Amino acid sequence: MAALACASAAAGQDLTCPSPDGKIVLNFDMLKGGVPSYSVDFNGKQIIAPSRLGLTLDSESARNDFTQAGEKTAANALQLTEGFELTGSESSGFDETWKPVWGEESEIRNNYNELAVTLTQPAFDRHIVVRFRVYNDGVGFRYEFPAQSHLNYFTIKEENTEFAMNGDHKAWWIPGDYDTQEYNYTRSKLSEIRAKMPEAAAQSANNASATVAGPTAVQTALQLKTDDGVYINLHEAACIEYPTMHLSLNDSTMTFTSWLTPDAQGKKGYMQTPQNSPWRTIMITDDARKTLASRLILNLNEPTKYTDTSWIKPVKYMGVWWEMISGKGSWNYTDDVYSVKLGETDYSKTKPNGRHSANNENVKRYIDFAADNGFDQLLIEGWNEGWEDWFGQSKDYVFDFVTPYPDFDIEELNRYAHEKGIRLMMHHETSGSTRNYERHLEDAFNLMNKYGYNSVKTGYVGPILPRGNHHYDQWTNNHYQHVVEQAAKHKIMVNAHEASRPTGLCRTYPNLIGNESARGSEYWAMGGNQRGHTSILPFTRLQGGPMDYTPGLFEMDLSTFTNNNSVINSTIPGQLALYVTMYSPLQMAADLPEHYARHMDAFQFIKDVPVEWETSRYLEAEPMEYITIARKDKNSDSWFVGSTAGDNARTSVVSLDFLDPGRKYTATIYADDTKAVAKADKAGKPYGANKPYVISTKAVNSKTTLRLPVLPGGGYAITIRPQ
Amino acid sequence: MAALACASAAAGQDLTCPSPDGKIVLNFDMLKGGVPSYSVDFNGKQIIAPSRLGLTLDSESARNDFTQAGEKTAANALQLTEGFELTGSESSGFDETWKPVWGEESEIRNNYNELAVTLTQPAFDRHIVVRFRVYNDGVGFRYEFPAQSHLNYFTIKEENTEFAMNGDHKAWWIPGDYDTQEYNYTRSKLSEIRAKMPEAAAQSANNASATVAGPTAVQTALQLKTDDGVYINLHEAACIEYPTMHLSLNDSTMTFTSWLTPDAQGKKGYMQTPQNSPWRTIMITDDARKTLASRLILNLNEPTKYTDTSWIKPVKYMGVWWEMISGKGSWNYTDDVYSVKLGETDYSKTKPNGRHSANNENVKRYIDFAADNGFDQLLIEGWNEGWEDWFGQSKDYVFDFVTPYPDFDIEELNRYAHEKGIRLMMHHETSGSTRNYERHLEDAFNLMNKYGYNSVKTGYVGPILPRGNHHYDQWTNNHYQHVVEQAAKHKIMVNAHEASRPTGLCRTYPNLIGNESARGSEYWAMGGNQRGHTSILPFTRLQGGPMDYTPGLFEMDLSTFTNNNSVINSTIPGQLALYVTMYSPLQMAADLPEHYARHMDAFQFIKDVPVEWETSRYLEAEPMEYITIARKDKNSDSWFVGSTAGDNARTSVVSLDFLDPGRKYTATIYADDTKAVAKADKAGKPYGANKPYVISTKAVNSKTTLRLPVLPGGGYAITIRPQ
Repeated sequence: MAALACASAAAGQDLTCPSPDGKIVLNFDMLKGGVPSYSVDFNGKQIIAPSRLGLTLDSESARNDFTQAGEKTAANALQLTEGFELTGSESSGFDETWKPVWGEESEIRNNYNELAVTLTQPAFDRHIVVRFRVYNDGVGFRYEFPAQSHLNYFTIKEENTEFAMNGDHKAWWIPGDYDTQEYNYTRSKLSEIRAKMPEAAAQSANNASATVAGPTAVQTALQLKTDDGVYINLHEAACIEYPTMHLSLNDSTMTFTSWLTPDAQGKKGYMQTPQNSPWRTIMITDDARKTLASRLILNLNEPTKYTDTSWIKPVKYMGVWWEMISGKGSWNYTDDVYSVKLGETDYSKTKPNGRHSANNENVKRYIDFAADNGFDQLLIEGWNEGWEDWFGQSKDYVFDFVTPYPDFDIEELNRYAHEKGIRLMMHHETSGSTRNYERHLEDAFNLMNKYGYNSVKTGYVGPILPRGNHHYDQWTNNHYQHVVEQAAKHKIMVNAHEASRPTGLCRTYPNLIGNESARGSEYWAMGGNQRGHTSILPFTRLQGGPMDYTPGLFEMDLSTFTNNNSVINSTIPGQLALYVTMYSPLQMAADLPEHYARHMDAFQFIKDVPVEWETSRYLEAEPMEYITIARKDKNSDSWFVGSTAGDNARTSVVSLDFLDPGRKYTATIYADDTKAVAKADKAGKPYGANKPYVISTKAVNSKTTLRLPVLPGGGYAITIRPQ
Repeated sequence: MAALACASAAAGQDLTCPSPDGKIVLNFDMLKGGVPSYSVDFNGKQIIAPSRLGLTLDSESARNDFTQAGEKTAANALQLTEGFELTGSESSGFDETWKPVWGEESEIRNNYNELAVTLTQPAFDRHIVVRFRVYNDGVGFRYEFPAQSHLNYFTIKEENTEFAMNGDHKAWWIPGDYDTQEYNYTRSKLSEIRAKMPEAAAQSANNASATVAGPTAVQTALQLKTDDGVYINLHEAACIEYPTMHLSLNDSTMTFTSWLTPDAQGKKGYMQTPQNSPWRTIMITDDARKTLASRLILNLNEPTKYTDTSWIKPVKYMGVWWEMISGKGSWNYTDDVYSVKLGETDYSKTKPNGRHSANNENVKRYIDFAADNGFDQLLIEGWNEGWEDWFGQSKDYVFDFVTPYPDFDIEELNRYAHEKGIRLMMHHETSGSTRNYERHLEDAFNLMNKYGYNSVKTGYVGPILPRGNHHYDQWTNNHYQHVVEQAAKHKIMVNAHEASRPTGLCRTYPNLIGNESARGSEYWAMGGNQRGHTSILPFTRLQGGPMDYTPGLFEMDLSTFTNNNSVINSTIPGQLALYVTMYSPLQMAADLPEHYARHMDAFQFIKDVPVEWETSRYLEAEPMEYITIARKDKNSDSWFVGSTAGDNARTSVVSLDFLDPGRKYTATIYADDTKAVAKADKAGKPYGANKPYVISTKAVNSKTTLRLPVLPGGGYAITIRPQ
């Protein structure tokens, strides 16, 4: 338990709060005019320059009585940004260890010093609290709006939280967008964001639901690096009953300001006291590996609300999915029907198109392969009526989530799967039609319970209905949360694609076992990903929760099996690495069984890699360049190592000093065959999309250092077993 | 079965379709440029001038493929108003009698001639159908969009249906408004609408959800009268999965054009072929009584979908309601709490305000009175948690529809009511928060089933959530319909206040037993109604379905029992008349038991008047001036007569020739005591708000003519029983 370390200056209104190890210091200052602000020092130097705090209320808030106490004009009454007095402060410390239901480790330490300042606007007889928590790896703060008669219901016009950078830092960013997160990252200086935004935003041209936010607005989590080598990461935690935050850069002052997602009317948030904003988080480390090791976001979230979590279990799965994404098969059953009316369209009278992937025979083939290879579940997309016209029509009653196609025998297939020891995984594509999904939710979950499904992948592809709302606004965030809570009543786990990027709510609601909410593996079939994509995602997208990235693609040349000419700029070892570097309690082996069948030696790693971890070590890391992580199996003494690269070939150097001293292990290494590639290049006969790999075994121990070469976009994976 | 009476001209493209009796003739013409139009003749003279038809599509429709067949510019592709060719026409006749589950008569004849024209736009390879049905009392027509590859999904920017008046007719209108219908009527010439609109619209100043539509936009049903004494009434039938229509007047040409209710984005309708628009209806009669007798709207609706309707029964009820509306009591339990969080706010710890009307003791008192006086049900408002802050806060989770206040014992009160032979009536005020209501709907209906409620009054007071949507847009109309259909699964009847004015859907879904959806009796406590209000509503608001007007107020001076100084400009006989003139399967005796107790002689009429009718006769009628109707009880040979007035005193003259010839009857007449009033006026001591009434009996038969004087805002009611 840390001592009460936060101190107030004898005079004036400057307050400080240090991290437990003292290296980070949060400074709270009241600026002239009663403007609250903060700054942060790291290792004795300012790292976050003075940044203002507050919110601007919408004029419709005036319907409430809170202006009555005021003598000033109504315009000022809408400002929760100035005219404050510091009327109270409390300091405390906290140091506990908690156990997540699933995660990168079995225990997490939550250790911080806290400073809560009460700010009162005497002119309006109202007050707010700003609560700061200072950790060894960063700062979190939130606004609290206590119950009070002169601040009751109010509407937010904009939140005005600043994050003032003290230099033209390097940034890895994606454009602010109210409806899609599926961008490749741009790496640039802050000063270049404006000029590079049009090109970055143009990536969304094919995304049916893009709504770019502003000329210098970017999404969080935002990874930054100063010229001094300090890594700053900005995000939020516990975003519940609130819109998702973007950051808008003033590129004269290098100050970011919060920019919330608007609703259909352009309003930002509807609040009722007592209520808190999400935590705004500033992770500060001197080492990129510490950024990956940080649990700041989870620690700021509330402990789990569920009394029984025994039904929540990580899942390794395959899917009748990649064949449709790649174009080999289809979600839809027939090509006869261009306009479906559920309950009226009689599928038994239509002609099957012969390419519908989710048919009984094909599904059984996948079940056989998945069961024979130790997988837990099989996802099947395209099992239900409605796929003929599901996309791009702003359709309200688009799916009913309960009626299978004629060639999908839901009862028999579940029986068959259970007999073989696996479950099927449900799929609820909502097409953004949230009211429709909620109307069918109970029936859909009851169907799942009836047939023994315990997990569902949900999707929100396309613009949100009710029309005018956005994927990340308060209204829709409320919907995603509603689904998670309803699912828990049915002991169902949820993996929500296209929902808002997570903010650590999975601590409180651990049946939220995943989101996509970023550009995933599927984009290899639709425009491609950058080689360094999976070496930035753990810094950014994964800050708030795991990503269902769907790795494990073995056939890199799609033209060999579909009409799609896309090429996957990755390697098999690079794909294997992702099972370690892209933490997820849901791990998919995304490719087709026949592609794995050709490489059962490499596939062995996917079969072996666990989904539950005891502890993790971050060995090498640089945003968008490389990541190397080692994790210990929760259920054995084995360790697993993964390393991904970026645009550049490299040699990874890792010490295995995390192994038990004095113990002997055998390492099985799945690596890029850089020698074979070099040789072929020299001979003028370079390899095509499919690069060679080499599997070797080696005796190792805690004194071993490995040096492994890696191709651009490649990587390696290692299984380390005690002898 | 009428002969195929519709004919086409030998040359050109003029088609006609007469009513079965030939007095109304619909003319369909293709104007230059391929613009479809219609006109209507009545008794050989044009009554509706040439009026164009069509729709304009929204540019987002271009996402679909329907422009691909065209050679013209994309701009023309959005017009479904021109460039048509008449490529087909079909004529037919129809003559059937059907029995409504409830209504003003036990049988309704549906007799019309029909003309369906197929209109094709060759440039875009797409076609629509306009179907006309011509009745002896008017015309209905709708657009049909058949399934076709070049018209699949489309968005409506505006519907461009014209209703060209051929003169500056007299009109009884209320302002077009996307969120409220609770206006007093304005009586004016069409040319005066623009000038009178600001004053008319200003009535909504206190209505939290008004959104006035446009400077000459009015609501339907719109009642008109030509200088020749022809009554025209414009409305719509079967408005389902479509936005509600307003009419916008071009006051140079005296042409109304349809003006649909926009959604949050300003879009008007989202369509998927095959789909039909609602019927646009033009009632044409030479006698106002025929306007009231017309069943045009119901006849255009589809027959009932329910296989079992035995659970749907008209209801006579009282309510713990007027005491709150008048201000005597409160809906809310406590004044301690200004901000409720359901499930967190602990009402057992708050101080009851002592005025909460829905408490056990008070409710039992009402149950006793209602049961002792033969009522079927007792409505109770304010029974459930959440009323302390329910209004005006844009609150999402405002009610849960299942948790009673501490002083409302839901189990015991239902037991008590059932023991006394009546049911309680449920109340679901949604506060416009439609997603919240849908989330709780199943639990709310299950609770009703558990405790033996079979009917619910719903409300939508305040702006609609999802925010930005409107009460009468397609999105919200879909919600109201969803509630009705879900209620039917639980054998529950629905009375939806503040929902869209009805369009005859109660024929198809007969558990929709009422709406308010106009300015009701409650406004006597909040600004007042005009004396002629109940003499216009049957022409307008009641065209599409019954109104839960909540009549039966006996104490006209509210200051005698509350702090409210409102005075009701009506009389007891005028209130009794409403049970006959304002048809509703739901009839409320709205006042407090103690006010009835003082006038049990007059109250007897309310006890006697049935809610199920065999047949109805419309004896006298002029919009906003007077209405006299006689109806025969479905379950006996008794007749009931009601007459309401307007601003002017009058003498009602009615022949009782509807009685069985040669049979003797006793009439009990409840009338304004005009003699006593005249005497008091002459003596310089006029009566206050409460006017005297006189009850007399008289032997009558089919040859009797009654002459009854009526006060301004008054009326009379008569029970006629066979001797």
